[in-house]
Amino acid sequence: MTFSTTVERWGVHEIELAGPTGGNPFADVRLSARYQYRNRVVEAEGFYDGDGVYRVRFMPDAVGPWRFTTVSNVEEMDGCSGGFDVGPPAPGNHGPVRAAGTGFEYADGTPYLPFGTTAYHWTHDMDEERERRTLRTLKSSPFNKLRMCVLPTGPMAPPEVPFAGKDPDGLDLTRFNPVFFRHLEAGVRDLRDIGVEADVILFHPYDGGVRGFQDMGREVDHAFVRYVVARLAAYRNVWWSAANEYDFNRSKTVADWDDILRTIVRHDPYEHLRSIHNGTRMFEVASLYDFGKPWITHQSIQHWDATPTDAWLAACPKPVVIDEISYEGNIGKRWGNVTAQELMDRFWEGMSRGGYVGHGESLAGFQERAWIGNGGGLYGESPDRIAFLRTIMEQRRDGTLLRYLGRRQPAQVTVDLPAGDAYEVELIDTWDMTITPIDGVHRERVRVGLPRRPYLALRMTRVGDR
Amino acid sequence: MTFSTTVERWGVHEIELAGPTGGNPFADVRLSARYQYRNRVVEAEGFYDGDGVYRVRFMPDAVGPWRFTTVSNVEEMDGCSGGFDVGPPAPGNHGPVRAAGTGFEYADGTPYLPFGTTAYHWTHDMDEERERRTLRTLKSSPFNKLRMCVLPTGPMAPPEVPFAGKDPDGLDLTRFNPVFFRHLEAGVRDLRDIGVEADVILFHPYDGGVRGFQDMGREVDHAFVRYVVARLAAYRNVWWSAANEYDFNRSKTVADWDDILRTIVRHDPYEHLRSIHNGTRMFEVASLYDFGKPWITHQSIQHWDATPTDAWLAACPKPVVIDEISYEGNIGKRWGNVTAQELMDRFWEGMSRGGYVGHGESLAGFQERAWIGNGGGLYGESPDRIAFLRTIMEQRRDGTLLRYLGRRQPAQVTVDLPAGDAYEVELIDTWDMTITPIDGVHRERVRVGLPRRPYLALRMTRVGDR
Repeated sequence: MTFSTTVERWGVHEIELAGPTGGNPFADVRLSARYQYRNRVVEAEGFYDGDGVYRVRFMPDAVGPWRFTTVSNVEEMDGCSGGFDVGPPAPGNHGPVRAAGTGFEYADGTPYLPFGTTAYHWTHDMDEERERRTLRTLKSSPFNKLRMCVLPTGPMAPPEVPFAGKDPDGLDLTRFNPVFFRHLEAGVRDLRDIGVEADVILFHPYDGGVRGFQDMGREVDHAFVRYVVARLAAYRNVWWSAANEYDFNRSKTVADWDDILRTIVRHDPYEHLRSIHNGTRMFEVASLYDFGKPWITHQSIQHWDATPTDAWLAACPKPVVIDEISYEGNIGKRWGNVTAQELMDRFWEGMSRGGYVGHGESLAGFQERAWIGNGGGLYGESPDRIAFLRTIMEQRRDGTLLRYLGRRQPAQVTVDLPAGDAYEVELIDTWDMTITPIDGVHRERVRVGLPRRPYLALRMTRVGDR
Repeated sequence: MTFSTTVERWGVHEIELAGPTGGNPFADVRLSARYQYRNRVVEAEGFYDGDGVYRVRFMPDAVGPWRFTTVSNVEEMDGCSGGFDVGPPAPGNHGPVRAAGTGFEYADGTPYLPFGTTAYHWTHDMDEERERRTLRTLKSSPFNKLRMCVLPTGPMAPPEVPFAGKDPDGLDLTRFNPVFFRHLEAGVRDLRDIGVEADVILFHPYDGGVRGFQDMGREVDHAFVRYVVARLAAYRNVWWSAANEYDFNRSKTVADWDDILRTIVRHDPYEHLRSIHNGTRMFEVASLYDFGKPWITHQSIQHWDATPTDAWLAACPKPVVIDEISYEGNIGKRWGNVTAQELMDRFWEGMSRGGYVGHGESLAGFQERAWIGNGGGLYGESPDRIAFLRTIMEQRRDGTLLRYLGRRQPAQVTVDLPAGDAYEVELIDTWDMTITPIDGVHRERVRVGLPRRPYLALRMTRVGDR
C-alpha cells in the first residue's frame, strides 16, 4: 500500500491497494475509504484499475491532519489506515464550483462566471498532439468550462472504449476498461490544471444502436455511473451532466434520469454540480426537465433564444446555463451554422438577463473535424468577443447596470439610475469591442446619444455619492 | 345635375345634385343611385358634400353603356337618371385588388404582390409641399400600398378634422367636415394615380381622450363608416382596415368590430379588401382576431417575427400581410428602432414563407417628423433592398423555388429539386443585392457552396426538361 503524504486542499489523495484479479473485480469487490478530519467522516468509493490494482481517490476540503481507514469485502484491503496532512491550496486552486443563488462561486468564495465551450469527444481519439493543441487553445481562450462526453458516439471507432471486451460487437458491459478511463481522467486533470471545469456528460443518445449504450439496462447504467464517479469525483473541476439531449433517448424515461441523478448524489461525497441537458424539448419550455428537483443544482438548457432567461429564472431560482444556443459555424445543420454576430447577440442577450451562455464552434474546412466534436483549434470570430464580454462581466460589481440593445438602434436611450448615487456611463460596442465613456458623472436619469449600429450596450457604474 | 359622360373601366362616375341645406343633411337625407349594366343593378350610396351639394360616386366594372337612377327621400333628388359609356381602362389601371388564394390579384387578373409601407397621417397636416414629396418618394420606391388613417391622433392639431364643429372640444359628431374629406380623398386619388393601394384605417386607439374618437357610440361609429365608404369606395385602390391595434381600444369589443366590418360589407358595393390589425395581441397568436370570419379577406398582422407565417396560413387560408413587423428606425420605442439588416431579414423570412411583409421607417433626425407618421422622405437602407426583393418576387414563376438562409452561414447547402425538370440555380445576397449564377443546369439534387456571410438566399428556376 502506498499513498501520498501531503496534499493541497481540494487536491487529490489516492490510496493504491493490491487485490484480487479473479472473478469480476469490477462487480465482486467492494472498496471504500472513510476519511476523517476532526470529528467529520467522509466516505469515498474506490474502484478497480486493472492488473490487481485498486484505488480510492479523495478530495480533502480542509487544511490540517486527515486519517483514513479502508472498508472492503476483501480481507487484505479492509481496515488499511493511514494519515496525511492537507496544506493550503496552490495558487489558482479555489476548490470546486458551487451554485450560489442564481450564480456560481468556488468553494473559497471566489466568484465563478461560467464561460463554457464544448468539445464532446476531445479525448476519445487519444490523439495526444490534438489534445495538447486543445489545451493550448483553451488556455489562451476565454473559456473556463468544457462539456465533454464519457461515451463515444456510435460511428466513432476510438482506440479504447469505456467497457472491456471486443469493440464494438463483443463488449462486456459488466467490466470497465481502465486504459480508457486513465486517459479520460488525464484529460479532466489537464483541464483542472489550466483552470477549466470539466462538465462531464455521462450519457448521450448518439450511439445509433452500434454498442447499445443508449439501452444498457438499469444495472449497467448505475454501475457505469458509480465507476465514473469513483474515478473522477475527487477532481475538483468535475461537473456532472447526466445526459446530453436526454429526450432523444427513447429507451429512458424521466424516472430513469431521476434515478441516475440520485445515484450520482449517493456516491459523490463532494456534491459536485449536477444537471441534465435537453434536446428538442427546447421547443417547449414547459416540458424541460423539472430543474426544481432537489438533485439539480443548475439549469443546463439547450435553446436557440436567450430571451426566456427571465422566465426560467422566475420559474426556478437556480443558475441558468444555456450550454447550447447554436454554434458559430458553417455546417448544414441548423444548430451549427449561425454567424459569429448572431452567436454574440445571443450571448449578450442571455448574459445581460442573468443567464450564462455556452459557446461551440462547428466551422468545417479548418481542421480535420470541427472543435465542437474534437477540440483542436478555434477559427471563429466569436471567442475574442466572448473574452471581451467576460472582462465586462468580471468587472461588474454591485451597482453596475448593463443594458444591451441588440439589433435595435435607437438614436438615444434614456436610463433611469437608482436614486442617491452617481454613475459613470460607458457605451460598449460588443462587436468592435470598444468602450467609450460618456462625458460626466450622472444621476437619476441620463440620455445617451447612440451611433446608428447594432450590437451596442450601455454600462452604468456606480461611483458613489459625489 | 351634371355628370361625366365617359368613364374608364374601374374609374369613377360621379353624380352631383343640389339639395337641401336645412336640418342636418348628413343625418336627414338619404341618397343613393342604382347603376345598371345590362341586367345587373348595383346600388351606390351618396353623401352630402356641404353647401347644398350631394354626390354619388360609382366605380363601373364593365365596359359598355351604363344607366343610373337616383333614389332619395328628398323629392328633387329622387328619380334622376342618365347614362354614360364606360371605356377600357387606361394603362396602369388593372382595377381593384382581390384576394386570390393566399395571394392577391387585380380585377383584370394581373398578379398583385403587396409591398406596403405606412405613413399614418400623411394627409392630416394638409401640408401640400410634404404631400407632394411623399408622393414623389412613393413613386420612386418599391412600395405599392400605403397604410393611412382617416382619424388624426389626440395630440395632433390638424387644420381640419373629419367632424364639424369646433376642434377639439366642440365637435358635432352628427355632422361631417367635407373640407377634411375632400382633402383625404384627394390623397387617395393621388395614390391611385401612381399605382399605390390606399389601406384606409377607419379607427385607431390613439385619441388619448382628446376628441373621444375611441368611444363615439355605435350610431356615430356606423354613420362615420358609411360616410367614409360613400366617399371613398369608388376609388379602386381602396382597402378597408377596420382599425389599427384594435385591441388597444378598451371601449370596443370583438362584437363591435364584427359589427363595423359587417357595415362596411353592407355599404361597399365593390367588396374592397377588408381586414383589422392587432396591437399587443401579437404576443399571443391564438388571440388574434379570427380571420376566418367571412367578412375578412386577408390577415393583417402585427408581429415582430415572420416565422409563424406557415402556422397562420395553415390556420386560415387567406393571404398573410404582416403590416407591422417593427420599423427601420432609431427612436426609443421597441417597434421603431430595428436596423435595416434586421428588417430585411424579417422581410425575407416572411416572403419566402408565402407571406407579405410591410415596411415602415421611424428614423428621427432627417426631417421634422418620421415617415411612419407623416410621410415625406425615406432615409433608410431598407427601401433599396425591398425593391430588390420585389424584383425577385415578381420574377417568381410556377416552379421557382426560393430558400432563404438568414443569419445562418452553412458552407454548403443541398437542395432537392423536384424530379423530372432541370433547374438553374442562383446565389442571392439579399443585403448586397447581387445574384450570382451557379454554373450548369441541375437536376434532382444540387450542392451549392456558400460564402461565410449571412442574409443569403438560393433561387432555383425551372428551365424545363433539357
